[in-house]
Amino acid sequence: MNSYSELASFASYPITSLPVEWHIEAEGVRLIWDDQHVSLLHTFWLRDNCPCSECVSPVTREQLFEICDAPADLHIRDVSLTAVAEQQRLTICWSDGHVSRMHPGWLRAHCYADAARQQRVSVQHTWDRQVINRHLPQHDYQQVMTNNNALLTWLQTQHQWGIAMIRNSPTEVGSLNHLAQRIGMIRETNFGRLFDVISRSDANSAAYTTVRLPLHTDLPTRELQPGLQFLHCLRNDAEGGESILVDGFRVAADLRQESPELYQALTRIPADFYNKDRHSDYRFRAPILQTDADGELTEVRVANFLRGPLDVSANDVELFYRAYRRFIEKTRDSRYQLYFRLDAGDTLVFDNRRVLHARNAFDLKSGGRHLQGCYVDRDELLSRIRILQRQQTVE
Amino acid sequence: MNSYSELASFASYPITSLPVEWHIEAEGVRLIWDDQHVSLLHTFWLRDNCPCSECVSPVTREQLFEICDAPADLHIRDVSLTAVAEQQRLTICWSDGHVSRMHPGWLRAHCYADAARQQRVSVQHTWDRQVINRHLPQHDYQQVMTNNNALLTWLQTQHQWGIAMIRNSPTEVGSLNHLAQRIGMIRETNFGRLFDVISRSDANSAAYTTVRLPLHTDLPTRELQPGLQFLHCLRNDAEGGESILVDGFRVAADLRQESPELYQALTRIPADFYNKDRHSDYRFRAPILQTDADGELTEVRVANFLRGPLDVSANDVELFYRAYRRFIEKTRDSRYQLYFRLDAGDTLVFDNRRVLHARNAFDLKSGGRHLQGCYVDRDELLSRIRILQRQQTVE
Repeated sequence: MNSYSELASFASYPITSLPVEWHIEAEGVRLIWDDQHVSLLHTFWLRDNCPCSECVSPVTREQLFEICDAPADLHIRDVSLTAVAEQQRLTICWSDGHVSRMHPGWLRAHCYADAARQQRVSVQHTWDRQVINRHLPQHDYQQVMTNNNALLTWLQTQHQWGIAMIRNSPTEVGSLNHLAQRIGMIRETNFGRLFDVISRSDANSAAYTTVRLPLHTDLPTRELQPGLQFLHCLRNDAEGGESILVDGFRVAADLRQESPELYQALTRIPADFYNKDRHSDYRFRAPILQTDADGELTEVRVANFLRGPLDVSANDVELFYRAYRRFIEKTRDSRYQLYFRLDAGDTLVFDNRRVLHARNAFDLKSGGRHLQGCYVDRDELLSRIRILQRQQTVE
Repeated sequence: MNSYSELASFASYPITSLPVEWHIEAEGVRLIWDDQHVSLLHTFWLRDNCPCSECVSPVTREQLFEICDAPADLHIRDVSLTAVAEQQRLTICWSDGHVSRMHPGWLRAHCYADAARQQRVSVQHTWDRQVINRHLPQHDYQQVMTNNNALLTWLQTQHQWGIAMIRNSPTEVGSLNHLAQRIGMIRETNFGRLFDVISRSDANSAAYTTVRLPLHTDLPTRELQPGLQFLHCLRNDAEGGESILVDGFRVAADLRQESPELYQALTRIPADFYNKDRHSDYRFRAPILQTDADGELTEVRVANFLRGPLDVSANDVELFYRAYRRFIEKTRDSRYQLYFRLDAGDTLVFDNRRVLHARNAFDLKSGGRHLQGCYVDRDELLSRIRILQRQQTVE
């Protein structure tokens, strides 16, 4: 009974601590917990999160109450800790007569004091060649296909490192579908659901030729670059075609150290990306380095062969080229580069918005090369991790 | 012969003007055109855009040359206007011996002088009830299905206004597929490719009940909210269920006028959105109002019933609620609201990231209500417009 699965969530929130003092203040309620942690929870925040069955639909678990409907002068009349079905609830009586019973495990998990928020930051490890040669996460196909714990381990390391290798995959055409769907929906693109990386005479992308591909992210021409990229090796006995991978987040972090000016330029000045095709004309315009509302780096967007003409204020042109040339130059430094050959049965999975990939030219006179690939967006990866974590908590 | 379809592009660039003077300067080349327009084109920008067959693959039309490989001290030796196959080219001789022949139509179309960039800004019309009641773009199903000019007209107004109504659609289940695919790929989600908006007892979303839905965007829980939303009415003779649409861009613009502080808060402070489902746990964190690298408003993200607990610095909590409550309050003002009933055969298409939608509760005792919906991303819309424009230019 020590967990929370009330209306507004499907997740569990074990009670690890209880409030021992509470003070009604101008902003809201200040809670002091039995481990000395302090939470200041604002009036509208508390009202917004009332989990009662009037405020949250028992069927869909979605909010029915709209915070816009609370009176502007809403305030708290009374706070107490009361037992509801053998569990403690922080009970809040509101000036308009409504009563909210808040679960202490849920409240603590969602406390937004600086210290609490810092603990929730998820760790991502950046890497260079030395680090990834020691730590490349490797997993077994049968294990991740049949065991949910092995799957969760893969996906968590996948998220942390941005890369993983699945060994012993079957080498049947189309079998990549099964692996990708262990995570979620495959992202369909104009190249199909599964795409075949083979040489074609009517190539509409350099990927479908035998030439060297410089380090790039796939589909920077699309607003949402695909998240995970899978490359499943069915056959690889041609000479050449080695894979090269670089952690764009590490290169960006090092550039930031080296020159904050150039790093800032790449997070601010938009570049244009155009695909080249008779049947589609996708374009997107965004900085090479994208940061989120919290200022954290969330993606790299780069593919020399898909860049359109730079279209920015004349004042930014020289700065852009200085920053872009330096960034690309750094990615070419072998100390960042994971360099290897895919063998039949290997499935390489990497975060396409973080890890740049390249391949050497290959020679089809010497043998065959056939990869199948697909994309699965980050949304799907993170959702699957959360669902697997829910199940673990329940077990 | 007066157009450009050389290597790096499939589009045409008619020559409407020619350079009459050119000066090599420290930054690059200053061109003076026969209509007095002035283009200052920087050294690296020019070199980056060389269209020769060494620099751009004749097969894929993708860039092979990487600007990173140009020497840091690259400069221009000589510029001249020379005839190539009866067409003028701006010929640039580089300090490293390379020669670039640039097409004047292409150069002028990509000039990034302030005046030139301003002319390229695409116009979007925001609307309130009065405006949209006069100007709601309406199109005929058969016309847009069979005539590419009618299709282009629809898609251009769709982009400008964020909304259109397609009349006289067939009322067969599944027929929406054909209309959506006139644009491009349907965006698949966990609700399927086509989704049925009918009342269900196992609803995992308020959409699948009979309740009133407040104004919202669909799938704010996903990093990329779906772009176009199609709602195809197959049957609607139940009482209630009226549709309400509000141009979020107009409300945001008005809020910006009314209170720059509250507008800024909504573009800066991230909100969290969670879906509520046993089988998926999508979450995304982003400001209610998203602006792009150029500071332009690009999307609204709002759905009261999918918001997770606010997780921001305590300093921002009160400001967020002040701004959010005011924004929602404004959307409820009837002067913004397009209010109507969908009839069988109507297909409503709107930009889900701009136009908020709501529906009134309906009563199934009084009749039936069956809509089918689907999503098509903005990328697909804009690509289709460009492809249709290419074809028009050729005709």
